[in-house]
Amino acid sequence: MSQYDVLCIGNAIVDIIARCDETFLRDNAIIKGAMNLIDAERAELLYSRMGPAIETSGGSAGNTAAGIASLGGKAAYFGKIARDQLGDIFRHDIRAQGVAFDTKPLAGQPPTARSMIFVTPDGERSMNTYLGACVELGPEDVEKDKAEAARVTYFEGYLWDPPRAKEAIRLTAGYAHGAGREVSMTLSDSFCVDRYRAEFLELMRSATVDIVFANESELKALYQTSSFEDGLAAIRRDCRLAAVTRSEKGSVIVRGDETVDVDAIRIDQLVDTTGAGDLYASGFLHGYTTGRPLGECGRLGSLAAGLVIQQIGPRPRENLRDAARRHGL
Amino acid sequence: MSQYDVLCIGNAIVDIIARCDETFLRDNAIIKGAMNLIDAERAELLYSRMGPAIETSGGSAGNTAAGIASLGGKAAYFGKIARDQLGDIFRHDIRAQGVAFDTKPLAGQPPTARSMIFVTPDGERSMNTYLGACVELGPEDVEKDKAEAARVTYFEGYLWDPPRAKEAIRLTAGYAHGAGREVSMTLSDSFCVDRYRAEFLELMRSATVDIVFANESELKALYQTSSFEDGLAAIRRDCRLAAVTRSEKGSVIVRGDETVDVDAIRIDQLVDTTGAGDLYASGFLHGYTTGRPLGECGRLGSLAAGLVIQQIGPRPRENLRDAARRHGL
Repeated sequence: MSQYDVLCIGNAIVDIIARCDETFLRDNAIIKGAMNLIDAERAELLYSRMGPAIETSGGSAGNTAAGIASLGGKAAYFGKIARDQLGDIFRHDIRAQGVAFDTKPLAGQPPTARSMIFVTPDGERSMNTYLGACVELGPEDVEKDKAEAARVTYFEGYLWDPPRAKEAIRLTAGYAHGAGREVSMTLSDSFCVDRYRAEFLELMRSATVDIVFANESELKALYQTSSFEDGLAAIRRDCRLAAVTRSEKGSVIVRGDETVDVDAIRIDQLVDTTGAGDLYASGFLHGYTTGRPLGECGRLGSLAAGLVIQQIGPRPRENLRDAARRHGL
Repeated sequence: MSQYDVLCIGNAIVDIIARCDETFLRDNAIIKGAMNLIDAERAELLYSRMGPAIETSGGSAGNTAAGIASLGGKAAYFGKIARDQLGDIFRHDIRAQGVAFDTKPLAGQPPTARSMIFVTPDGERSMNTYLGACVELGPEDVEKDKAEAARVTYFEGYLWDPPRAKEAIRLTAGYAHGAGREVSMTLSDSFCVDRYRAEFLELMRSATVDIVFANESELKALYQTSSFEDGLAAIRRDCRLAAVTRSEKGSVIVRGDETVDVDAIRIDQLVDTTGAGDLYASGFLHGYTTGRPLGECGRLGSLAAGLVIQQIGPRPRENLRDAARRHGL
């Protein structure tokens, strides 16, 4: 029996969240809806212009791990924090959620990563991420026992931004496959796909990655197409299993000849889209690692994503296992 | 003309907020609804038992200053943070709200104060405050120009907990009165009143304080009575102006022979009572320093308090000036 359902690997980030209007994004050259990478100097500038904020642990794969634990699954996490107050917050929150997190924190500089997230009135989030300590994640941070013990290893495409995290991923994937496990990734962001298209395709075509999560714009960016259908046909060929999210249109899951369409859940009020994709992956992977049919995996994803976008912040404050029961899942 | 409407002085605290059930409070000997003072060791213990949390700038008088600025008033703040990440968060948030905040941060230990706030399903908050750098606030932190330039100086009774803050208060009150200004305080917490009853009464009876804010339980604690009417009669004698809040029963304002009853606003959903009293003081003092009649001051207080308890965290994310306009205030 496997000790973990899912091992998640990602940039360990504390989110700093404030609302802003559309003008603010334009005036500050922030690409709307994207993950904008920033350096320390720009982080300071943007923070000086940001309104009063709240802080919450984030990081794409960290949110997914938290979601899996909230659903009752067993999750582990690799990610690099520094020994500082933001690092303490990150470690506290993910462990308090029940996720195994033992990556050695960085003793000196740079500090723990933070992402300044601006939420516009339409609920869309635009992220500005200073990677900080995340740039130090490397193969020395791979815990072999966890890589071998997790049914699925899941990582962010964002990990191609820091210099050595990809080495950690390839090492972990090797351990996982060696132990007969599966490996999964999210394409993370369409601009991230633009930066690393060739490498992402290689990961899929070499079967380093078995399961791929993408949203519609990431899928189109990957295959440089404006046609969703063409993108779907291509990803169906390139990986064993793919789940493509389409916001309010739900998601489409493809595996070989199989295609499963999943509806989004009904939303009372869209508050903040931060974490939507991360939580979809939580629900899907929780279903997948507990042996549910693909449609049910997708519905668990829709539910977790639908709940997180009705609150501020990327990790649902509600217990997801209770929510799933309430929704008959 | 006065440069500031209100100068607020308090313990500069970052709030760490999580939900918990009633059992958790009992199991951890946390006095429900109170501000429980804790040391570094207990802070670590409680944090290890706390669920995933969010962080937001807090501190009673800091919340009041933020509320006044949000209402369109000019506010300043004195409070001691350390040069650390939580201190950066506190300074950012209060300045981003438009509050003048220039207290010199502490270079070394202890770190910036934090309060672990547990919110039970009934919306009540129970605070566990580690004072950290706040213990270093002293008369050397008093900015004479701000004390003289503010129409009203407002401070927390909580400031009697750190050792030398009371010296800062007495110095500031002297400057303020010397410039013909008024001085105001909140009784903060019924247990705080128990700790410093004689000194609080002396502040009022010596007219060091002109305006007092209290809730019903603090008023009863101050006069060691179970009768609200007796408490009200006593505070009417002891200070020039008092505003006593009574949760969903609204508030009562007394000044000499004058008595003004103010209704609470209608609440859709009580989420988290954190900041209710602080925001009542914001609204009241904004009305007071802009020359409104007492009833209108109280209604502004009710509105600001009513809005903050319908969200998580002690500082309203909504612009209070817009909210006041919408409510015809």
